[in-house]
Amino acid sequence: DSSLKVFTLNSNPSLAEEIAANIGVELGKSSVTKFSDGEIQINIEESIRGCDVYVVQSTCEPGNQHIMELLIMIDALKRASAKSINVVMPYYGYARQDRKARAREPITSKLIADLLQTAGATRAITLDLHAPQIQGFFDIPVDQLVGVPILSSYWSKKGLEDIVVVSPDHGGVTRARQLADRLKAPIAIIDKRRPRPNVSEVMNIVGNIEGRTAILIDDIIDTAGTITLGANALIENGATDVYACCTHPVLSGPAIERIENSKIKELVVTNSIPLQEDKQIDKITQLSVAPLISEAIIRVHERQSVSILFD
Amino acid sequence: DSSLKVFTLNSNPSLAEEIAANIGVELGKSSVTKFSDGEIQINIEESIRGCDVYVVQSTCEPGNQHIMELLIMIDALKRASAKSINVVMPYYGYARQDRKARAREPITSKLIADLLQTAGATRAITLDLHAPQIQGFFDIPVDQLVGVPILSSYWSKKGLEDIVVVSPDHGGVTRARQLADRLKAPIAIIDKRRPRPNVSEVMNIVGNIEGRTAILIDDIIDTAGTITLGANALIENGATDVYACCTHPVLSGPAIERIENSKIKELVVTNSIPLQEDKQIDKITQLSVAPLISEAIIRVHERQSVSILFD
Ligand SMILES: Nc1ncnc2c1ncn2[C@@H]1O[C@H](COP(=O)(O)O)[C@@H](O)[C@H]1O
Ligand SMILES: Nc1ncnc2c1ncn2[C@@H]1O[C@H](COP(=O)(O)O)[C@@H](O)[C@H]1O
Repeated sequence: DSSLKVFTLNSNPSLAEEIAANIGVELGKSSVTKFSDGEIQINIEESIRGCDVYVVQSTCEPGNQHIMELLIMIDALKRASAKSINVVMPYYGYARQDRKARAREPITSKLIADLLQTAGATRAITLDLHAPQIQGFFDIPVDQLVGVPILSSYWSKKGLEDIVVVSPDHGGVTRARQLADRLKAPIAIIDKRRPRPNVSEVMNIVGNIEGRTAILIDDIIDTAGTITLGANALIENGATDVYACCTHPVLSGPAIERIENSKIKELVVTNSIPLQEDKQIDKITQLSVAPLISEAIIRVHERQSVSILFD
Repeated sequence: DSSLKVFTLNSNPSLAEEIAANIGVELGKSSVTKFSDGEIQINIEESIRGCDVYVVQSTCEPGNQHIMELLIMIDALKRASAKSINVVMPYYGYARQDRKARAREPITSKLIADLLQTAGATRAITLDLHAPQIQGFFDIPVDQLVGVPILSSYWSKKGLEDIVVVSPDHGGVTRARQLADRLKAPIAIIDKRRPRPNVSEVMNIVGNIEGRTAILIDDIIDTAGTITLGANALIENGATDVYACCTHPVLSGPAIERIENSKIKELVVTNSIPLQEDKQIDKITQLSVAPLISEAIIRVHERQSVSILFD
């Protein structure tokens, strides 16, 4: 059998370390630095000829830098005769640019899939893609892992009572249903609408939240506007407490301040995106996706189905 | 005939303005900004259906950002039904990573060519590629323009006497010869060699420079180590004055300080890369490549040969 190598780039080295340790291999030796003018310099410092290589890289901020690192690494691996090049992208950046919402927009999410393949990726392992359709943007196999089981175990252990799982918008209802199933809880939906143009949004809550502990769930929390406004609306409408969770803590711009100042008691996220020090606040709990991803890598390498991990 | 549109991105908007003005068109309307998390947001704000589009972008620092802008713009233009997408890259970043100098290195220069084509570019217009072989990395037509005529007119007008054109290393002799031909001057070469490992380099000058005015020429000046050490060696070996020129002023890291402190009297560069304010020093003269590029665009658009521009 060909040997398995795990390499990291600069987005999420501690997650890659954890994954390698779980699998029982050393991280592959490489240096990923910059030339004086900012161009990326990559050297792979061990032979990978004939190996199955897994490269761990979340294309989180600075996303363009991280995408280029990944593409250049794939090129180097290809030219160094890797047998397979499996990109492990716990966070897939540009996922929200997955359609033309207006005329003459790019579909960057598809572009990135094409670029990865052009560089030489032979498989992608992803986690909670913003839209499952993104799988179809690739012509190589894509394994999509799911974060809900990790989040739901945490909530189960915490032992909250009278839970209602809440989707912060219409797009997230399926995800809320998945969490609710595991927690044996009902769901509710925050139903935003704008009565007329230039009139501010009305937040209506569909479902019974009164006297209940609400758990908001989303895939990505970016500027945290949706989730914090939603939390406050839930309290105003009679929820006892509000918790929140997501897979991908982008947390850009005003996010941390908004979360601090919101009615959210605790926000649970994964380490698909590492939290810089200024984002490590008491309200935020970070769970590791390393066990899930390591298991997926082992299964892929041993030609076993990974669909069991979705359950 | 289909209409010609010129769009700019963020690397070199003033050059793009100049090009559009020379051609006699308005710059195409678009906005190229960032979302809160740093992802690039592009909107093309006028119809380009059936048009021949020219996108001006130098992939200079921050190179990864500028490459991603260009790729996403190409994707948007393609999906907006452009008839042709011509990328105009006065400076082609990553050109120095054009071969495996060591085992397991990437060939990023080829990767970028592939990425541009994957995104949807149908032609590239470039200027003084670091190696002419890079043209072969593309499967689409590449027009390579040459900066020497612009530099040589400047030196001719300046009226220096007893000139010798000097190549700062072995790789640049052909370029030095081209400039020397135009100035009707002899050439010399700075012949660096390391007598033994771990012994410092010896700078030997091949050719007669004594009592002459030396003009150093290179394609790229990056950290300016080669050119400033070369200039000092020329003075030590009897040159009266030393001038220098290059097409692409990368000027990263210690470059400006080194130039200031060197024996170089004047450095002449082009605006293939714009000079940030802290790089606009008295010793540096910047010449515009806009007339050359506009002429090339008009000729391409009118299906005329651009080879005349190489002369
Ligand atoms: N990085 C980003 N930050 C904020 N909005 C984005 C980003 N990328 C794409 N979008 C926009 O988000 C919308 C899609 O988000 P969604 O409706 O949640 O799928 C589209 O209008 C996109 O233009
Ligand atoms: N951005 C860069 N800055 C400095 N050196 C580079 C850069 N990109 C590539 N190189 C290295 O420059 C060498 C090639 O330069 P040259 O001999 O001038 O063609 C190779 O060893 C490359 O690894």
